[in-house]
Amino acid sequence: MVTASAPVRGQMIYEGKAKKVYATDNAELCIVSYKDDATALNGLKKGQIAGKGAINNRVSNHLMRLLDRRGIPTHLVEELDERDTLVRRVAIVPLEVIVRNIAAGSLAKRLGIGEGVPMKRPVIEYCYKDDALGDPMVNDSHILAMGWATEAELELISTMALKINDILKEYLSGAGLTLVDFKLEFGRLPDGSIVLADEISPDTCRFWDANTGEKLDKDRFRRDLGGVEDAYGEIRARLLGGME
Amino acid sequence: MVTASAPVRGQMIYEGKAKKVYATDNAELCIVSYKDDATALNGLKKGQIAGKGAINNRVSNHLMRLLDRRGIPTHLVEELDERDTLVRRVAIVPLEVIVRNIAAGSLAKRLGIGEGVPMKRPVIEYCYKDDALGDPMVNDSHILAMGWATEAELELISTMALKINDILKEYLSGAGLTLVDFKLEFGRLPDGSIVLADEISPDTCRFWDANTGEKLDKDRFRRDLGGVEDAYGEIRARLLGGME
Repeated sequence: MVTASAPVRGQMIYEGKAKKVYATDNAELCIVSYKDDATALNGLKKGQIAGKGAINNRVSNHLMRLLDRRGIPTHLVEELDERDTLVRRVAIVPLEVIVRNIAAGSLAKRLGIGEGVPMKRPVIEYCYKDDALGDPMVNDSHILAMGWATEAELELISTMALKINDILKEYLSGAGLTLVDFKLEFGRLPDGSIVLADEISPDTCRFWDANTGEKLDKDRFRRDLGGVEDAYGEIRARLLGGME
Repeated sequence: MVTASAPVRGQMIYEGKAKKVYATDNAELCIVSYKDDATALNGLKKGQIAGKGAINNRVSNHLMRLLDRRGIPTHLVEELDERDTLVRRVAIVPLEVIVRNIAAGSLAKRLGIGEGVPMKRPVIEYCYKDDALGDPMVNDSHILAMGWATEAELELISTMALKINDILKEYLSGAGLTLVDFKLEFGRLPDGSIVLADEISPDTCRFWDANTGEKLDKDRFRRDLGGVEDAYGEIRARLLGGME
């Protein structure tokens, strides 16, 4: 399915908050191009994080390759350059799949738990991807009743999400990072099989320094903590330092 | 366990929005006393619905007896008088268990579905009972991680909730009523077993006239539709008309 020759970039088919997606001359492939744009609070807060696109592209591909080696199918085909990556074209399952190891952000607020309190077991949340509705939290029965995923797909997605959590937690721990929580998205290939899609980066994860607890992720932008670019650079250095 | 002689009412041990609960001289029993007070919108809207306490007491006991005959264990022991009912004393599982057959209220709003659209299958939602937090919606993994119920309890509660839905839908249909959605609460007996507790009434259910779609429940109060007392009276008449 993957062509040996370089794919030819076609029309932009989607522009999201942090990425553009282009068609290619192969109907089964597209090119993801990471931007420096950052948004938070459902788009109310907007800005730029210099160098973010290049960092997220590299970090996400690095973590996807790790997951792929550990048996998680992903959309990744090949990193093309600093900001661009060739991926399999998928139909996105319209759910944000959030895995939480430690209370932070909206969970801490909604359930009245102090930020930093470990959960007794990993929590999985689903949000229905709809900007106009503010990506509302939904549960399994909403997803099945609305037909956003089948029972078999949901079972597979939750199993994969927990396995991804185990793999990433262990790997990041070796880089002195605590994986607090993260957001995943999954997609359907033309044959109906489910693969991990979207990205895994400081935009979509909460990474805390394992010793100091310092936040090394997009919360520095969301909460105006300063040092945003340094935090993204630190993640890149810890995960890819010896590989560039 | 249930004494043959009338229980002696003791101290009030709890006052909720619509009910008071009194201890009795039997540690395993208490008395629920239904009030006419009504609140909505998480307590922001307050009022009285004349005669509501007496109607809810009768209607809830009537439906609990029906469920008990159909194999659902409940807290109900004996109706004492117009407003008061003797029940088994339980430790309430801190969850509101909501079953929805048709989109209405918060579900319709959150998911952008028109009110009145049937769900393809019944939806179950859980809210963590905490007034200060606004009874936030939670899912199975929050409940298990926070220890609000065990996996076995949650399985039992969801199975019972769906069975209750089947029984009530069919029964109410015979009274010309559509069961749109409803809220249940469950409790633990001293031996750890789970029984249906709280109430089933126009305060906790959405009942629509099966022919006209007229709302015959607390939405008339929540939404200032008028005819609140008439609607409660209509439910009482349809369900208990020949029994009083």
